[in-house]
Amino acid sequence: MTTTPPPGEPANPILTEVLARFATTSNPRLREVMLSLIGHLHAFVSETHVTWQEWEAAMDFCAKAASVTGPGRNEFIALSDSIGLSMAVLAASQPKPPGATEPTLIGPFFLDDAPTVAIGADIANGASGQKLYVSGHVRDTAGAPIPDAIVNVWQSDDRGLYDVQDNFDPAHMWGRGRIRCDEQGRYAFWSVMPTAYPAPMDAALGDLIRATTTRYWRPAHLHFAIQTQVADPLVTHIFARGSQYIDEDVAFGVRPSLIADFVQHGPGLAPDGTAMAEAFATLSYDFVLTRPQ
Amino acid sequence: MTTTPPPGEPANPILTEVLARFATTSNPRLREVMLSLIGHLHAFVSETHVTWQEWEAAMDFCAKAASVTGPGRNEFIALSDSIGLSMAVLAASQPKPPGATEPTLIGPFFLDDAPTVAIGADIANGASGQKLYVSGHVRDTAGAPIPDAIVNVWQSDDRGLYDVQDNFDPAHMWGRGRIRCDEQGRYAFWSVMPTAYPAPMDAALGDLIRATTTRYWRPAHLHFAIQTQVADPLVTHIFARGSQYIDEDVAFGVRPSLIADFVQHGPGLAPDGTAMAEAFATLSYDFVLTRPQ
Repeated sequence: MTTTPPPGEPANPILTEVLARFATTSNPRLREVMLSLIGHLHAFVSETHVTWQEWEAAMDFCAKAASVTGPGRNEFIALSDSIGLSMAVLAASQPKPPGATEPTLIGPFFLDDAPTVAIGADIANGASGQKLYVSGHVRDTAGAPIPDAIVNVWQSDDRGLYDVQDNFDPAHMWGRGRIRCDEQGRYAFWSVMPTAYPAPMDAALGDLIRATTTRYWRPAHLHFAIQTQVADPLVTHIFARGSQYIDEDVAFGVRPSLIADFVQHGPGLAPDGTAMAEAFATLSYDFVLTRPQ
Repeated sequence: MTTTPPPGEPANPILTEVLARFATTSNPRLREVMLSLIGHLHAFVSETHVTWQEWEAAMDFCAKAASVTGPGRNEFIALSDSIGLSMAVLAASQPKPPGATEPTLIGPFFLDDAPTVAIGADIANGASGQKLYVSGHVRDTAGAPIPDAIVNVWQSDDRGLYDVQDNFDPAHMWGRGRIRCDEQGRYAFWSVMPTAYPAPMDAALGDLIRATTTRYWRPAHLHFAIQTQVADPLVTHIFARGSQYIDEDVAFGVRPSLIADFVQHGPGLAPDGTAMAEAFATLSYDFVLTRPQ
């Protein structure tokens, strides 16, 4: 990004003025980020000759995104996801060594105050779907357990809805919880099978996707966000192998290492000794976290 | 914008996947715009190595902008204005021939259902400030009047507030109106003197400007949006010559041709014959519109 136009191109007095003023930003990192962002957005406008009507449509688009943004939903995260920008940020800023669990996007439905539950408890809290038992360990790249890691999990029910999308009552969250690992770094919980679901198409994201890629599904997955005292935090999904739409995630979030087997079982004993009268599923997944360099 | 990285740069598999999917967009103009925008946003992320924490801060910033966006206020317009993007769109898409009135930005406070008033009426409707009489003509670049042009005007009061910022009652708008020109293309109205005012600093724009340029004032101006049956629409401001902050408009909207004299008068007869017991001001300004090519 340079303020000097290439030979033959006219000077851009507006951009020159804007860059000169933002160059006075005292925080060097913010200055770097803003000058780059401003340069790219102005280059986009010059290259494509955005018209006033298109700009007004873009502002209306932002207002439509704003109209559905609030506690438990941020349409701008969904939009960032939908053009691969969230994944690009992760790739640029959280490169992982071989063996470490790959990060993926957080999505728009994370809540930081989900209920804390005991290891092995049921986080479904009324969410509908086939019963699912999930267990595993949180370790570092050397194989050492990370005790006291906190595993946040959140997911849709079998209608493809998250609690925040369904007459949300903060006093009755469902399909989400926080589990503190034990001294061996082990976590476990009961929940329900995740389901492939369409991204929320009722606002700006829907307008964008319908007019462009027409690919608006997310394959079945569980969301995880793992916080520890000693390791780098990890935000990721585990995707169900064989799920529909696994090759066309609207959020570009699927990585091969994050696809796992959600194993089907007939009625009988679950891994934690529970006698199950109906068919159920299990997932075993170990998370491998990096320690700060 | 190309999907092939230059020699020596690593391929970007995420961007490649995103561009391939958006390349399926059926509308050619939307495809062009989205591929350019996506390319520039990803280039911004790669160049600056946006971290996950910065991305989360950006998403929170969008949510804060969303929280104040609604009828009568669009924080995203204010943000676009604050990095000169709105003016860049006008420059790229509405180049004007010599003699035509220059466009400037619409700003966040336009309403499309302001009351229609007769020529010469008072649009203040209770707005506080020194009385101001504004008059002039709407003509085309050949000097011919444009009859039946509709002149939309909106402005702040002497506290620097617009009606939509002050316990807004849609049934009692003030400082805004729509005037239909006569057969000679003449418009006139009474209002109050505009005042320099700070951009709304209570949300995302405030966070941005405080952390970057620290320049958050708009010099005194009236907003105009002129719609006609025969000419290109025009959105512009008229700025008061000598206003404080005329050289550091937060929105980069000032153009020398848009600065005019707001003439001060002692008590006496106004141009329309009204006997004024107190000092008042007048502005005379002719708008020159282009006809579609």
